[in-house]
Amino acid sequence: MITQDARALLDTLFERMLDANERSLGYPAAKDFDYSALERFLRFPINNVGDPFADATYRVETRECEREVVAFFAELFRAPHDDWWGYVTNGGTEGNLYGLYLARELMPSGMVYYSEQTHYSVAKNLHFLGMRHIMIRSQASGEIDYEDLRETLKIHRDVPPIIFANIGTTMTEARDDIAKIAQIMDDLAIRQRYIHSDAALSGAYASFLEPRPAFDFADGADSVSVSGHKFLGAPIPCGVVIARKHNVQRIARAVDYIGSLDTTISGSRNGFSPLMLWYRLRELGISGIRERLARSLACAAYLVEGLRAIGIDAWRNPSAITVVLPRVSDAIRAKWQLATAGTISHVLVLPNVTCEQLDAFIADIAAERAAQGV
Amino acid sequence: MITQDARALLDTLFERMLDANERSLGYPAAKDFDYSALERFLRFPINNVGDPFADATYRVETRECEREVVAFFAELFRAPHDDWWGYVTNGGTEGNLYGLYLARELMPSGMVYYSEQTHYSVAKNLHFLGMRHIMIRSQASGEIDYEDLRETLKIHRDVPPIIFANIGTTMTEARDDIAKIAQIMDDLAIRQRYIHSDAALSGAYASFLEPRPAFDFADGADSVSVSGHKFLGAPIPCGVVIARKHNVQRIARAVDYIGSLDTTISGSRNGFSPLMLWYRLRELGISGIRERLARSLACAAYLVEGLRAIGIDAWRNPSAITVVLPRVSDAIRAKWQLATAGTISHVLVLPNVTCEQLDAFIADIAAERAAQGV
Repeated sequence: MITQDARALLDTLFERMLDANERSLGYPAAKDFDYSALERFLRFPINNVGDPFADATYRVETRECEREVVAFFAELFRAPHDDWWGYVTNGGTEGNLYGLYLARELMPSGMVYYSEQTHYSVAKNLHFLGMRHIMIRSQASGEIDYEDLRETLKIHRDVPPIIFANIGTTMTEARDDIAKIAQIMDDLAIRQRYIHSDAALSGAYASFLEPRPAFDFADGADSVSVSGHKFLGAPIPCGVVIARKHNVQRIARAVDYIGSLDTTISGSRNGFSPLMLWYRLRELGISGIRERLARSLACAAYLVEGLRAIGIDAWRNPSAITVVLPRVSDAIRAKWQLATAGTISHVLVLPNVTCEQLDAFIADIAAERAAQGV
Repeated sequence: MITQDARALLDTLFERMLDANERSLGYPAAKDFDYSALERFLRFPINNVGDPFADATYRVETRECEREVVAFFAELFRAPHDDWWGYVTNGGTEGNLYGLYLARELMPSGMVYYSEQTHYSVAKNLHFLGMRHIMIRSQASGEIDYEDLRETLKIHRDVPPIIFANIGTTMTEARDDIAKIAQIMDDLAIRQRYIHSDAALSGAYASFLEPRPAFDFADGADSVSVSGHKFLGAPIPCGVVIARKHNVQRIARAVDYIGSLDTTISGSRNGFSPLMLWYRLRELGISGIRERLARSLACAAYLVEGLRAIGIDAWRNPSAITVVLPRVSDAIRAKWQLATAGTISHVLVLPNVTCEQLDAFIADIAAERAAQGV
């Protein structure tokens, strides 16, 4: 029985979240979603056991929705016809882990290359998987330094390279150019190779940017991971990973117990997230995603201008919805929940962010500077 | 915009689940839960970034609830005072992966021992982590063969053992006795060792069984993983892993980006599941769990008797809520969504299962036998 105490705690938590949610500009989580139509499904013990494309015994599941979501992203990422596979993950990290795992299985002696601006979870993943790796310099923008990559690949031509590419780095939303990376490997006559695309943030809209970033299967990627809770928005971290089917089949193993081929990481899998993503994609469609992207890009430009107008050296990468600025004070950081790393902070201008909100943020910084007599 | 088409598909899915959920006896997922009080939280992009016990910048989170849930299980599992740590996982597999990862970090040359009745995901985990391992024979009950374990440990005394113990195997709910295992290692003067307790199913109630199975920290475990969606029930797979804090601290690494020590596997973590588990534990309390357990045990006994009465050779392990029977026909398997492996099938008598439902199941089998003239 839920006591009055517990109810009061829940109410407090709800109010606190309502408040915190109003002033969150630093985390890559869109807030303009409404999944109330799905609440009725919370009464079921949903479990998308095993491979979403195989049959399974347990029927309280949403694998049909999951397949539709996976197919949507496979097409968006220009995966080769009839040679793609994927599933809904618990977020970008799981998708990256899956891509690296697949690469390791295909090339056990492979060497992983990734830029110094790569998310910290990747080093954790590599340690987890016991994969050899070399960190490559980043440019000031956050994009990988292609010359350093070329020189380093040249030295290690005896081991197959596994490229971990960032399609939107955590701090500056820099996008590594997969076509350029593939060209470098072509130049060096490196045929046996694997490219994983970490498109956690940008994957949901990169296909609609002009010019189109080189990040997907047609550009040379072998797997792509994207988050669902970032640009699209969801109350629960989730994502999608897409890989080449013939690669996945090589590492599949038959499992009698669930009557299914076991190709996922978790086994028992969250079936509510696929339902949310399915609903969200149906709701928005391509036109809705395009519209949200246009709004974000316009507001990001507005923020850069506004900050510059008060003397703050703000900037953003081409077609980025992330605005970078010099490290903010602890007070600003706490109030607006900004992520900071070293000398910089950033604002994520997701589709829910309004000009009014950005005005308030700029005003806070201006007031602080005025108080300090800057 | 959600079309009529999409709404109709949702309605169909809902009806299908409602129906499938009625006739599901084979999967370890309790169905008698009601989280409608938490639906309002689905409007927030909740994310329990990083370590639940450290401070973090992002405030749309439920880490306070998560800490309460972790503390509840730490106490239930008799973790040493002031030397425990844990977090809410995406299910039993993640908790097992965490325990094995921790063991590997502490003893990189360690050898993992587990019985042949161990869940298939463990072999996948071990391959993932690149850990050496030896499969030990199981007894007919599904419990590990202690003599085989003793003999095998004796041969490999030069490498520290990592024991993966099943506290409720998937098919027969057999529980390995950790006290016996610890005694074997004591006999062999093996001091450097690690024991992980996979209590996915039984962890939620094993502390209340009489006699109490030897499975927790006081019995010698170094980490325990339990599922939240199994005996307690939840619409999303979730769980809790508890480990000795001084071990976890040895593998923690500081991460500037999230302003937190990164000791979890996922990084961005589901904050809705901790809320559900918190609510469920507040709702049930110890007395509620005890009451549910008594109901399940009584119904499991009822099912064994009922099946035996019609000539089916059904059985269950001591204090098990899992009833084992000879492999059922495909028709029965599909209708009641039973898991089968080799020559056996099983029924999970979770707290939501009623005698009426079991009567219907028994009647189906009896009718099939009558039709076949058995």
